[in-house]
Amino acid sequence: MDFEPGDLVEIKTKQGTYRGVLMPKHIFSGDDIIIIKLENGYNIGIKKDDSFSMKLISKAESKKMIKKIKDHKKGLKVSVLGTGGTIASYVDYRTGAVKPAVSQEELLLAIPEIGDKYDIRSRNLFSIFSENMDVEHWKIIAKEVEKEFNDSSGIIIPHGTDTMSYTASALSFMLQNLPGPIVMVGAQRSSDRPSSDAYLNLLASLKLMETDLGEVVVTMHGTTSDSIVYAHRGVKVRKMHTSRRDAFRSINTRPIAEIGENVKFISDYRKKSGPIIPKIAMDERAILLYYYPNMDRDILYDIGSRVHGIIIAGTGLGHVSQNIIPVIRDLVRDGVFIGITSQCIYGSVNLNVYATGREMIRAGAVPLYDMLPEVAYVKMMWAMANFSNVKEIMTKNIAGEISERRVGLDYV
Amino acid sequence: MDFEPGDLVEIKTKQGTYRGVLMPKHIFSGDDIIIIKLENGYNIGIKKDDSFSMKLISKAESKKMIKKIKDHKKGLKVSVLGTGGTIASYVDYRTGAVKPAVSQEELLLAIPEIGDKYDIRSRNLFSIFSENMDVEHWKIIAKEVEKEFNDSSGIIIPHGTDTMSYTASALSFMLQNLPGPIVMVGAQRSSDRPSSDAYLNLLASLKLMETDLGEVVVTMHGTTSDSIVYAHRGVKVRKMHTSRRDAFRSINTRPIAEIGENVKFISDYRKKSGPIIPKIAMDERAILLYYYPNMDRDILYDIGSRVHGIIIAGTGLGHVSQNIIPVIRDLVRDGVFIGITSQCIYGSVNLNVYATGREMIRAGAVPLYDMLPEVAYVKMMWAMANFSNVKEIMTKNIAGEISERRVGLDYV
Repeated sequence: MDFEPGDLVEIKTKQGTYRGVLMPKHIFSGDDIIIIKLENGYNIGIKKDDSFSMKLISKAESKKMIKKIKDHKKGLKVSVLGTGGTIASYVDYRTGAVKPAVSQEELLLAIPEIGDKYDIRSRNLFSIFSENMDVEHWKIIAKEVEKEFNDSSGIIIPHGTDTMSYTASALSFMLQNLPGPIVMVGAQRSSDRPSSDAYLNLLASLKLMETDLGEVVVTMHGTTSDSIVYAHRGVKVRKMHTSRRDAFRSINTRPIAEIGENVKFISDYRKKSGPIIPKIAMDERAILLYYYPNMDRDILYDIGSRVHGIIIAGTGLGHVSQNIIPVIRDLVRDGVFIGITSQCIYGSVNLNVYATGREMIRAGAVPLYDMLPEVAYVKMMWAMANFSNVKEIMTKNIAGEISERRVGLDYV
Repeated sequence: MDFEPGDLVEIKTKQGTYRGVLMPKHIFSGDDIIIIKLENGYNIGIKKDDSFSMKLISKAESKKMIKKIKDHKKGLKVSVLGTGGTIASYVDYRTGAVKPAVSQEELLLAIPEIGDKYDIRSRNLFSIFSENMDVEHWKIIAKEVEKEFNDSSGIIIPHGTDTMSYTASALSFMLQNLPGPIVMVGAQRSSDRPSSDAYLNLLASLKLMETDLGEVVVTMHGTTSDSIVYAHRGVKVRKMHTSRRDAFRSINTRPIAEIGENVKFISDYRKKSGPIIPKIAMDERAILLYYYPNMDRDILYDIGSRVHGIIIAGTGLGHVSQNIIPVIRDLVRDGVFIGITSQCIYGSVNLNVYATGREMIRAGAVPLYDMLPEVAYVKMMWAMANFSNVKEIMTKNIAGEISERRVGLDYV
């Protein structure tokens, strides 16, 4: 008998009996492993050993479903622009490696909640792991998002988690006055794994489409439990763990929304407005420099002479050693913008407390409040390409990247 | 009447009446501000306006106390080696700036708990803010610590908080087989400020002197309350907030001890042994590089050609873009050590999950488990100077910098 993805099957092995839906991804897993989605929502991989047998309980609905998703023209218009990443990947069970790519439709297929509520337009812009995203990719995404908003209420962007917050920052600055939500969504575990967070995160993204949100957010697993997803402001979020599903954290602020059964806004947010104001130019002559003791000033001179702007992640309140300050002075004199953030991650820089900080200010360094180093790097590229008053733009809150009030509560 | 530090005084102004001990630091605050320590332990600064009057309640004990501390030759022998930092600073109340320096004796004076328990040998090695610490300072501290252990049970090193974890790492590798605890201690608020954490942290450091601890620890305010201080392993701690008193966090592990009324060990730790094994050479041709999207490969080539080793803080599980991998290959071929950590801070790198990671390994990059980027940078300088098998040393746990088991609990 020919099985196909979406078939409800029952599998018997020495280890036990399992009933579930044959996953579309099983075709990638080699001939000797079968993946099914159990009723509790978890996927398992079962090895086809001597004791293996599988019988059909009911036929697949998947192809019909994919066609239905593609053809469905009622409900809220939502665009899904795929870029790749773990959320669109599967595990090769022979090697244990994660590989691209699952189609958007296959992903969406696994969300029965889609029902008749959404008219989904889905296409892939790229299929890459996010460590390979660069400024050119950000520009393409921004342009495509702008186009989609002509006929969509909101945009969902599945994206690798490694640099998701950098891309979210880029879109937050490039596209303002949003007519609807831009939701970046990822997964820490690929969609065919038992513990995948792909479906929960995607479902939460869809729920955001129905709100009046007009910001770029990152929507990821919120806690160790499987019930809560947070929507984080794109310019205030950071991947704070290499592997946990709740790796993403809002820094120096609360998430914008908590998404369980419903969307519950827990912070102030910008409401949708439009029409969109695009400013997508970026000056790529920019670097992000992490200060460390014993930093060689000659290296800084050399790097500095190649670029238009440097973001330094200093120690504590934003400091560098005395040794480095004359280099800052010389580079600023030559027209290089030097912005200061902190490698502490949490809290705000302040160059007025200690003598070192005051000397840095006299040398021309610009303290950037509680802006994250990564966000400051992206914002600087954008500010240098689109404005002449770079210092003013960098120290002004544009997209929520500078907290008006610091919320002590959220430091962990 | 002549007042002197340590006098118990009563001050009246329009605002009210205050009784407390005149602080030794008041001499730094200018003629128009008086600092007293209230009975509840808080310091306040009172402006000498027209309504100001001050009367003596009882004479100072401070000079006698300082002499007593210096002359006391009974109790546990403890060395205090000052290096500077906020803990040894005061606020200039006219400008609001923090300035060095308070003497060790003045600091210790404010801890009545010292009593007759300790025979304290106190001297200043330097008086600098820690952003100015470099490898030469680490070497001096290491040599002085080694000397002090000839006749002390333990060493306390007051230090600025900005780079305290870097220095703690350096000492952890340079000095092994410790005959007693090396406790680095700092303050987020200078010792004359109402909310200073200097005394609580110092007192906790003294309590550690009585234990069998044989590691380098960082002892800092543990929670927002004033009751708990944590002793963090020197190679697992990071300053995670620019300003909060509980800024220091153990990463991927629990603190070694919780210090309230008594010292309570909450993790495994190395017990004191001795004699000390010093290895204080450091290869300074090392850099710490924070990866970011769009990193220019030419900059990496240039930097790489100047050094013997690079620690990269990659994205997620330790990734860099495809574009950077050939540079890694070329540099490794030329003999440069390239170690990989993660900018997520929490969690462990793993270059076996994704294609990017596997290519990085093939190019010669060395994944460093859950080692912090800053710790890896310091360890690499030490490994390159003292061993020929750098890769082996870097991937082997030397001082607790690589977690044997990851403790999920402690990710915040």
